[in-house]
Amino acid sequence: MQPLSDRTAVKRSRDRGVYDADVIHSILDEALICHVGFSTANGWPIVIPTIHARVGDVLYLHGSPASQLMGTTDEVEICVTATIVDGIVAARSAFHHSMNYRSVMVFGKPRRVTDQAERDVAFEAIVNHVIPGRSDEIRGPNEKENKGTRLIAIDISEASAKVRTGPPVDEPEDMNSGIWAGIIPLRTVAGTPEPDPDLEGGLAVPPSISGYRAN
Amino acid sequence: MQPLSDRTAVKRSRDRGVYDADVIHSILDEALICHVGFSTANGWPIVIPTIHARVGDVLYLHGSPASQLMGTTDEVEICVTATIVDGIVAARSAFHHSMNYRSVMVFGKPRRVTDQAERDVAFEAIVNHVIPGRSDEIRGPNEKENKGTRLIAIDISEASAKVRTGPPVDEPEDMNSGIWAGIIPLRTVAGTPEPDPDLEGGLAVPPSISGYRAN
Repeated sequence: MQPLSDRTAVKRSRDRGVYDADVIHSILDEALICHVGFSTANGWPIVIPTIHARVGDVLYLHGSPASQLMGTTDEVEICVTATIVDGIVAARSAFHHSMNYRSVMVFGKPRRVTDQAERDVAFEAIVNHVIPGRSDEIRGPNEKENKGTRLIAIDISEASAKVRTGPPVDEPEDMNSGIWAGIIPLRTVAGTPEPDPDLEGGLAVPPSISGYRAN
Repeated sequence: MQPLSDRTAVKRSRDRGVYDADVIHSILDEALICHVGFSTANGWPIVIPTIHARVGDVLYLHGSPASQLMGTTDEVEICVTATIVDGIVAARSAFHHSMNYRSVMVFGKPRRVTDQAERDVAFEAIVNHVIPGRSDEIRGPNEKENKGTRLIAIDISEASAKVRTGPPVDEPEDMNSGIWAGIIPLRTVAGTPEPDPDLEGGLAVPPSISGYRAN
């Protein structure tokens, strides 16, 4: 990773700051979506939920050329935040209630991707980020769809993670107060796939779908 | 709800825009966390994951007075986005892959809450947002904790929701291509509560914890 910058150094709960590239990458890979913030042309902040994909040290975002996010250019700073909630921390006091979570922030100015080879790799990565292996089973983008999709890239060079794990941390005077404390673990699970009502008869559920595991 | 403003009118996929207060409130209530975006004092955008709670038409956020978010004042515009992912839309083409989701954006300038009665209500709401009924089982904030927690409020007056439901929408020419399409439903589930290793012996799991249901 790059050295810490003013904005990636975790400021609150510094013991939760993580700057290891492997940790940052694994959180970005596991998080199904991210939230992207930037100032609009009108000067308002906006936070947009979107799908992302990581290829090496590069994070890709895509969308319609008409979307506000895809209108950002290399002159607009963005912040991409991906968060996974692992559990609820139930403490003995209101004050010490918390969450166990893993989050990543990536800062930078997006680059618009026009090279077709890079676009092809990124589009596949985006499909496979959401459903691993899915890109082998479907029709890829045709010329019209390719032209109708804007792709931006941001280097994962100015980034940090914040991670909380473990049980509640309570005040000494509350430890024998007769109040239950602990963790409620949370996870995302996938239900039974629901075929499109218009699906052709006799089609088997393909490997990417039958084997899908939510994180 | 207030009339549409320039920034709440959903611009992309306009058919997904929802402006009904009940829908907006229900999404805010169900989403465990939100992502808050604003420009820092240095002019960078930042997106911070945090816990929220709604009381009527007001959204509350809390944190340490030293946090960047709690440093925002009524002169700083913020955008609060809460997103629930309900499923993955697996289409026949890469282009039509999507998510089923419900998201809300709330825009405005936060008000710092100093009235103690309002603070008490908001602190309870925040605890109960995360674990319904929990506030009755725990020790409330003492004077030091109260002073050490900043609370900001934002009116849910300039807000919109965006909702996608239903099966994939594919191109006519792909409908008989032999490619499976459908939905993978996703939901968050709670595992078995894990008692604090330092828990006193003989304490039963209380109703808020034993009855906890993730959405």
